[in-house]
Amino acid sequence: MINTNIRISLPAVCFVWQIAMIVLFGVFIRYDAESDIRLWLQLKHTNNITSDIENDFYFRYPSFQDVHVMIFVGFGFLMTFLKRYSFGGVGFNFLIGAFGLQWALLMQGWFHALDPTTGKISIGVEGLINADFCVAASLIAYGALLGKVSPVQLMVVTLFGVTLFAVEEYIILNLLHCRDAGGSMVIHCFGGYYGLTISWILYRPKLHQSKRLNGSVYHSDVFAMIGTLFLWMFWPSFNSAITDHGSGQHRTAINTYIALASSVLTTVAISSASEKRGKLDMVHIQNATLAGGVAMGTAAEFMITPYGALIVGFCTGIISTFGYLFVSPFMEKYLKIQDTCGVHNLHALPGMLGGFIGAIVAAAATEEVYSREGLIETFDFEGEFADRTVGTQGGFQAAGVCVAIAFAVVGGAVVGLILRLPIWGDPADDNCFDDEVYWEVRGAFLPLDGGLQFFKSKD
Amino acid sequence: MINTNIRISLPAVCFVWQIAMIVLFGVFIRYDAESDIRLWLQLKHTNNITSDIENDFYFRYPSFQDVHVMIFVGFGFLMTFLKRYSFGGVGFNFLIGAFGLQWALLMQGWFHALDPTTGKISIGVEGLINADFCVAASLIAYGALLGKVSPVQLMVVTLFGVTLFAVEEYIILNLLHCRDAGGSMVIHCFGGYYGLTISWILYRPKLHQSKRLNGSVYHSDVFAMIGTLFLWMFWPSFNSAITDHGSGQHRTAINTYIALASSVLTTVAISSASEKRGKLDMVHIQNATLAGGVAMGTAAEFMITPYGALIVGFCTGIISTFGYLFVSPFMEKYLKIQDTCGVHNLHALPGMLGGFIGAIVAAAATEEVYSREGLIETFDFEGEFADRTVGTQGGFQAAGVCVAIAFAVVGGAVVGLILRLPIWGDPADDNCFDDEVYWEVRGAFLPLDGGLQFFKSKD
Amino acid sequence: MINTNIRISLPAVCFVWQIAMIVLFGVFIRYDAESDIRLWLQLKHTNNITSDIENDFYFRYPSFQDVHVMIFVGFGFLMTFLKRYSFGGVGFNFLIGAFGLQWALLMQGWFHALDPTTGKISIGVEGLINADFCVAASLIAYGALLGKVSPVQLMVVTLFGVTLFAVEEYIILNLLHCRDAGGSMVIHCFGGYYGLTISWILYRPKLHQSKRLNGSVYHSDVFAMIGTLFLWMFWPSFNSAITDHGSGQHRTAINTYIALASSVLTTVAISSASEKRGKLDMVHIQNATLAGGVAMGTAAEFMITPYGALIVGFCTGIISTFGYLFVSPFMEKYLKIQDTCGVHNLHALPGMLGGFIGAIVAAAATEEVYSREGLIETFDFEGEFADRTVGTQGGFQAAGVCVAIAFAVVGGAVVGLILRLPIWGDPADDNCFDDEVYWEVRGAFLPLDGGLQFFKSKD
Repeated sequence: MINTNIRISLPAVCFVWQIAMIVLFGVFIRYDAESDIRLWLQLKHTNNITSDIENDFYFRYPSFQDVHVMIFVGFGFLMTFLKRYSFGGVGFNFLIGAFGLQWALLMQGWFHALDPTTGKISIGVEGLINADFCVAASLIAYGALLGKVSPVQLMVVTLFGVTLFAVEEYIILNLLHCRDAGGSMVIHCFGGYYGLTISWILYRPKLHQSKRLNGSVYHSDVFAMIGTLFLWMFWPSFNSAITDHGSGQHRTAINTYIALASSVLTTVAISSASEKRGKLDMVHIQNATLAGGVAMGTAAEFMITPYGALIVGFCTGIISTFGYLFVSPFMEKYLKIQDTCGVHNLHALPGMLGGFIGAIVAAAATEEVYSREGLIETFDFEGEFADRTVGTQGGFQAAGVCVAIAFAVVGGAVVGLILRLPIWGDPADDNCFDDEVYWEVRGAFLPLDGGLQFFKSKD
Repeated sequence: MINTNIRISLPAVCFVWQIAMIVLFGVFIRYDAESDIRLWLQLKHTNNITSDIENDFYFRYPSFQDVHVMIFVGFGFLMTFLKRYSFGGVGFNFLIGAFGLQWALLMQGWFHALDPTTGKISIGVEGLINADFCVAASLIAYGALLGKVSPVQLMVVTLFGVTLFAVEEYIILNLLHCRDAGGSMVIHCFGGYYGLTISWILYRPKLHQSKRLNGSVYHSDVFAMIGTLFLWMFWPSFNSAITDHGSGQHRTAINTYIALASSVLTTVAISSASEKRGKLDMVHIQNATLAGGVAMGTAAEFMITPYGALIVGFCTGIISTFGYLFVSPFMEKYLKIQDTCGVHNLHALPGMLGGFIGAIVAAAATEEVYSREGLIETFDFEGEFADRTVGTQGGFQAAGVCVAIAFAVVGGAVVGLILRLPIWGDPADDNCFDDEVYWEVRGAFLPLDGGLQFFKSKD
Repeated sequence: MINTNIRISLPAVCFVWQIAMIVLFGVFIRYDAESDIRLWLQLKHTNNITSDIENDFYFRYPSFQDVHVMIFVGFGFLMTFLKRYSFGGVGFNFLIGAFGLQWALLMQGWFHALDPTTGKISIGVEGLINADFCVAASLIAYGALLGKVSPVQLMVVTLFGVTLFAVEEYIILNLLHCRDAGGSMVIHCFGGYYGLTISWILYRPKLHQSKRLNGSVYHSDVFAMIGTLFLWMFWPSFNSAITDHGSGQHRTAINTYIALASSVLTTVAISSASEKRGKLDMVHIQNATLAGGVAMGTAAEFMITPYGALIVGFCTGIISTFGYLFVSPFMEKYLKIQDTCGVHNLHALPGMLGGFIGAIVAAAATEEVYSREGLIETFDFEGEFADRTVGTQGGFQAAGVCVAIAFAVVGGAVVGLILRLPIWGDPADDNCFDDEVYWEVRGAFLPLDGGLQFFKSKD
């Protein structure tokens, strides 16, 4: 009998780690110049800022809130599709999101926002967005593990996930000087392969014993559509949240909006064509429709052109749906990778493609289209990178994809091995995908397997 | 036996139309001066714009995202109320929304944003909002057809709906020079009558054979409330999204907020008064509470005064609830119009009223209230319209309503006749309102008709 | 047999009060200088405002919409957790919210925005936010009464709740000159104790007769998570919506975001530690995770520091969860307070604590941290309060908490006594928590008590 009692381990992890956060925040984290009252007044005087509307808050806060909704309602509800794991889907997503964003503020702060003179990290609204982004990679990884791990394991996945993210992001954005505003590489590609690698290490040969629970019922599929739609609608905000003020945010939002629309049509087309009477599959509609947003994470801020965005959405909708139809079953059968939500098809693969699309679009940039000043602004060709050509930039962008995958696979393998220790309270093979293991469940479930199966009510 | 196999037709339509979009976008669509990096930098230099916050993105993007939520979550979830057609409600809304907004960018672009020298259409955030608006009319029409048509038919409804919309909008806004920011006339009145006319042409005398499915269950009504509330909350953004910067957007949001509050109380009053024990009907709460937003679509940007807005909400809440109680049954029985969601009561009628309210409020505008400059700004009395009086404006506003209805009825009749061709895979009379026809449905449904009825589980 | 027929009373209350609103709006309410076209154009000329982006609309509208979502979807769906009272939870919340915000515009207007020369109230986006805030207190009170009162009683609760709110807010903010941007004192502490006092007066010794319905089922718990997450995600907007432009809004959002993250971890820790196998309880996750937002309602705009915010969230997550575990059962058994949603643990207690935290943080403010100018801006040390020290300010802040509680208890007692009159159509003791009483319910409910219990279907 496997022990899933987490009464000691889960509270211990939550308490100790949260106290550590408080101590580290106390030592390191301070308000930045736009959120500290003294510094902001000083900044206004020094720079002759006449209006408070120039505060970065007003440029980025609406997008931040959209991103926040994607992280907690989007990812959370997308994972409610299982008939009996909706609590775990939305609830554990909530838990690890809330932990991860704190750890992300620290990790990203050390790498990106540490003031060398004071030794302090300054945070503002852009920092919050980046923390949400950072956490997104771990939530994506959760999608591959959904229903098969304990919340304590998820905390470990997130601790390492955020750490690895901060390092790979530093290498990709700072050392390689890539652009990756919406995180095709650093978020989706990394997060997807990280989760898949962990799932591969944690392979359960007898998972079929939980087969009865590894599927949806009618209303759980409707719940999942809440997640899908909030992700789909707010993806333009996700990709544009930290791009350049002005035309940068504007263009990124447009490109993402367009690409996502295109993904919907090709997803529907493939889903329908793959069933003998043309019936649509909710799994495809819930997931592959989003592939265009993932794949535009790098290129959306470039001048990819509206029809370029449409083409990206067109192709990735097809590829992602084929992934659900053929690649996932193949991976499970032959590669021993059990990917509950199909993050390979929605995040890993479209993210990797998005990285390469970004590389190509960057390499194809011209002064004619961007203007000289525009090229410099878009690609940050300043300081030590002032002489970089767009061709070189494209090469480095492509290299970034490889860095993301390398971190994901190596990091995921290490984390997976740690999670195989028999101390984490993970469920037995015949107990996966079942909220009963970690949640007090009241009243009855919906009937399963064409029969009725009730749980004792508990008022 | 009616053939509902759409395995060929649905993928074909999706693929061919999406490819057509790519080609047309390639030929016509470009970024506008605020989203193109080169043009934006140029614009800043030319016009001495010192801050990126002047980019239209920051004026309109938050409203755009609210509108986007209304289109996909609002309309989508409002249509999940049927016990067994929630997938179709939210899923087909998603499909035709995603197609329609692309086609809308083109159609509206040709009519409103075509640069005659280059032959190109410029798009920015205002274009995205307008595309969402344009699509809304077709989604409203879907409400009248819910459960009775195939997704292929819905694509046709949307193709023609967007086309007709762009033309009637051009006539109403440009030729008649009406103001209709929130689209009482161009969106709700047009969309509602368009859908009703199609439903009339597609009349199914034997629809009672699907009667068992034409209703809600407990949880599907709760899902529908998600749609209702997001529509209700974000309607101030809908009406104000493309109004004038500054006091225009501000006032429009206030007026709409106020009118909607008033509609809720009168809807509750009539709903309760119409049942023998005073019980409320979810159908009324889900729909008629929104009538104030529809009816303020034209007048909200004018100086209608806060109590004027309250009165509009008061009356339309009553009218809309009476519509559900008496007009819908009457229309079904005597006019042979089967209106699944009651779009007549929520969109067509309040939209028409909203158009006339707008006409009256426009005609009553005075320089004393608006100031001369304010009148010019509000009604765009510039260029060839510089000499138009408010009385004339009111007359043209009223004429606009008639144009919207004419396009809806004539266009709807033509589209309805096209949809009667026996090639579209629409469901049989005893198979309407059933997701089984177009979706792979897993697990069990909730019990129906006081009994239990299960579907074979399929993991 | 208790008479729950509200066919006369509910429509009468809705109609009469709505007509009263129209009359009062007609007499008192006008657009403010930023939403009136004439006044705005005048203001721009007078103050040399060069850009419409300076309109307060652009500073506050995105936050307003987030707050609006919290009021209607957040509070509404949080109250859908009961197995058979989801209609009442979300529907009556909608009704009283819509009424309350109108009455709030008037009541708050008379106290805060009445122009003494014209006798008119000016409203703009800040007024709408304040109206939503004001209504929140009555919706919180509803949480304590959920399932045990009629909608007519709720209208009365809201009428008096809004009135009391406006007066206590005037005393706290204007006379005592407290700061309470996110309303720990004026909203949460007041609203919580107001509802608890009413519930105490309306004590039902035989409520156990409805015990079978006073609990959740699987999917109603998932619905409630929609409410929880929208509250949690948008709480930074709630607290920052009416703080100072610039660094004020920015800092408040950051502090709230951080505190909320911390609450999630300690809630999970205590919830897990309190069950013998470490299983989590949805009640805790749905509610106590939000305590950090409540407790930061006063202090979030101060320079509490990021780790200070973490500590607040840490402690209140623990306290709130302990409240659900021990205080609520104690209150029900010994104090005869039946608190359906546990508003004591989520609002009353964390709100009171938040008030005192604000007092301490205010008293600890220094010129070194804020700068002289920053102190004045943050605490409005101007006019007759120019000489107030931070120590005095702290004392007044603490006094504010007492005022809020006094108003809540005395006001709640009076309202409770009024509601005991046998004219309001409230349900019998064995009929509580049941939507059948006030709603037309179609189709079947989910099985209850491990058995099956169906309602006659009604198509």
